[in-house]
Amino acid sequence: MPDRNDPLAGFRDRFVLPDGLIYLDGNSLGPLPRAAAARIADVVAREWGRSLIRAWNDHGWIDLAPRVGEKIGRLIGAEAGGTIVADSTSINLFKCLGAALALRSDRRVILTETGNFPTDIYIAGCTSGVVRVVDDPVAALNDEVAVLMLTHVNYRTGAMHDLPAVTAAAHRAGALVVWDLSHSAGAMPLHLARDGADFAVGCGYKYLNGGPGAPAFLSVATPHRERVRFPLTGWLGHADPFAFEPSFRQAAGVAGAVVGTPPILSLAALEVGVDLMLEAPMDAVRAKSIALSQQFLSSMTARGFVSLSPEDPKRRGSQVSFAHPNGYPIMRALIDRGVIGDFRAPDVMRFGFAPLFLRHRDVSDAIAILDDVMATEAWRDPRFQERRPVT
Amino acid sequence: MPDRNDPLAGFRDRFVLPDGLIYLDGNSLGPLPRAAAARIADVVAREWGRSLIRAWNDHGWIDLAPRVGEKIGRLIGAEAGGTIVADSTSINLFKCLGAALALRSDRRVILTETGNFPTDIYIAGCTSGVVRVVDDPVAALNDEVAVLMLTHVNYRTGAMHDLPAVTAAAHRAGALVVWDLSHSAGAMPLHLARDGADFAVGCGYKYLNGGPGAPAFLSVATPHRERVRFPLTGWLGHADPFAFEPSFRQAAGVAGAVVGTPPILSLAALEVGVDLMLEAPMDAVRAKSIALSQQFLSSMTARGFVSLSPEDPKRRGSQVSFAHPNGYPIMRALIDRGVIGDFRAPDVMRFGFAPLFLRHRDVSDAIAILDDVMATEAWRDPRFQERRPVT
Repeated sequence: MPDRNDPLAGFRDRFVLPDGLIYLDGNSLGPLPRAAAARIADVVAREWGRSLIRAWNDHGWIDLAPRVGEKIGRLIGAEAGGTIVADSTSINLFKCLGAALALRSDRRVILTETGNFPTDIYIAGCTSGVVRVVDDPVAALNDEVAVLMLTHVNYRTGAMHDLPAVTAAAHRAGALVVWDLSHSAGAMPLHLARDGADFAVGCGYKYLNGGPGAPAFLSVATPHRERVRFPLTGWLGHADPFAFEPSFRQAAGVAGAVVGTPPILSLAALEVGVDLMLEAPMDAVRAKSIALSQQFLSSMTARGFVSLSPEDPKRRGSQVSFAHPNGYPIMRALIDRGVIGDFRAPDVMRFGFAPLFLRHRDVSDAIAILDDVMATEAWRDPRFQERRPVT
Repeated sequence: MPDRNDPLAGFRDRFVLPDGLIYLDGNSLGPLPRAAAARIADVVAREWGRSLIRAWNDHGWIDLAPRVGEKIGRLIGAEAGGTIVADSTSINLFKCLGAALALRSDRRVILTETGNFPTDIYIAGCTSGVVRVVDDPVAALNDEVAVLMLTHVNYRTGAMHDLPAVTAAAHRAGALVVWDLSHSAGAMPLHLARDGADFAVGCGYKYLNGGPGAPAFLSVATPHRERVRFPLTGWLGHADPFAFEPSFRQAAGVAGAVVGTPPILSLAALEVGVDLMLEAPMDAVRAKSIALSQQFLSSMTARGFVSLSPEDPKRRGSQVSFAHPNGYPIMRALIDRGVIGDFRAPDVMRFGFAPLFLRHRDVSDAIAILDDVMATEAWRDPRFQERRPVT
């Protein structure tokens, strides 16, 4: 087993990982970085507690959203000055779709794919665009399409789009592309600027380990920065917020995407997760992600589980999924024994492989526990049949 | 001085207040409740750190936004089940305006007043409504007005609308009312349900002491709950979020106003501030707020400062403001000496009187320090002329 030669082995100790837990859900909520507790306590006790309102200047709260955004920009290969932290992924998607529609005002269609994360499709329906949901969006590109909106890595199957190729195809058809990177930022090298992606949004609490409900990010490509206009305009996105002018003048570039005051405690926690991720060589992260998920996938298919994920690891993100009629109680039984994955209706067992803290030994241990759950039919326990609020 | 008979005196020790500081900016960022540090540390170390994704069920994170919203609902006199915490005040205002326009789809005008908080006017401009900004909105009500959008207490002057009377006038004209309670929630008794307010939004980090950038709230009156439809639709506002259905079906009532995942750390901090406020008798809060601000206002006008705030305390919120050509450096000099107020362009010195932690003695001490600043012309110090990012 290659744990001995793992160049990322040192990162495991940087996280709080309860004894006896094999955490295969870092794709849903990343674990607590050890440094986060002290940082949050300091923001609370010293910055808020002692500086109060002065902390906006004295502790740089006013620069926190662009600073953390800038760091995320490095992780996703965006150019400097193009990325900011604000709001939730959903709200940021609404902003980007509105901005993209305004830049392509001669067209109206937002094209996306069946199976995209439902919120993304719901949010597209909140814009002035005409939403078209198809099985093969690249084949459906035409001169009506203003915006191609895709999630890079599918939340359910882990299937990954070829971001450079799809972006190029959209541009050939005259469309802009908005990428949702929720399931890829922090899990693999990304090169948004090189690949010409127009807009991107993504989540802070998955592979970025930013904490529950961490604020999200939003990125705008350099060619659009001068002309971009966002459809939600709040005082902190104003060119001169403290002038309190009666008319809105958007701050230049991505700074104009900020609306209200960001949640500082959650934002400070996100910075710790992002800083930690920036220390990791992303090529090694991707290589280990593939090795771990491949190990798990082949063990599962050898046991007869039906994979929903692409066989070719180059076409997958960092999670793999399996359909199973008893998927729900099996997952509950696994969780009960300390193997934490999650479940997506109607029958999908989902397992994520975050390379900073997982080992090949964790994967083989998880499979051994699964074997026991299946052999003993532990999943038949009545406790595991009842659905909980979060599944 | 009536500090000795103050029924709220016991609350002061519930906050962290640095020695030597007189904090007259609780209207901008409330101080740290003592209980908040421990609660946040527990959410970080035990809930996030040890339970990880399981905390959504095991520590009730999934219920946190409605639970804290419900508590805020009690503070503002909303009926049970009508209030939720989500996003920022700006985003929530966008949701309420969109929902109100949809309920009055035969009309298009959003009426508001000159001098309303600029974000509110900017956000109105993001909706499909026609924004009309006038000096006297009640006089301008007519059968074109779909929504009257007002901030209950003006951020700059502290002037307070007569919420019951204005709401009734709007209803007589067939308009709905959206109230921004950012500068009143937690500062005085409110009776939204009794007064028939249709929608309300407000801020968590001012008088609710929820911490920097705390998430905001949103409230919908009972008569609208069945029909209300929000213009931003995300997975957590879905009737069955974990079904991941391709089409949006809004959750019943105010729960449909949730869009993305809320920032749990910031939300947990907000709950501590709200719980503390719920312990305080709001009539006593209002009486002390008036007594403190009246003491300060009369001291200031006696010294020749020009008040921008209504003379009648029943027409004011919990802050008072003064125009002064040297307002900026005077405020900087005061802050340098531990009297924390704030400044609003072009020349406004603003002072807030949060009754849970301020004493009459603090007000007289602040005036004594101001006297010294003015007598010694300490405000002429070059350090105090240069504008900082947050003013």
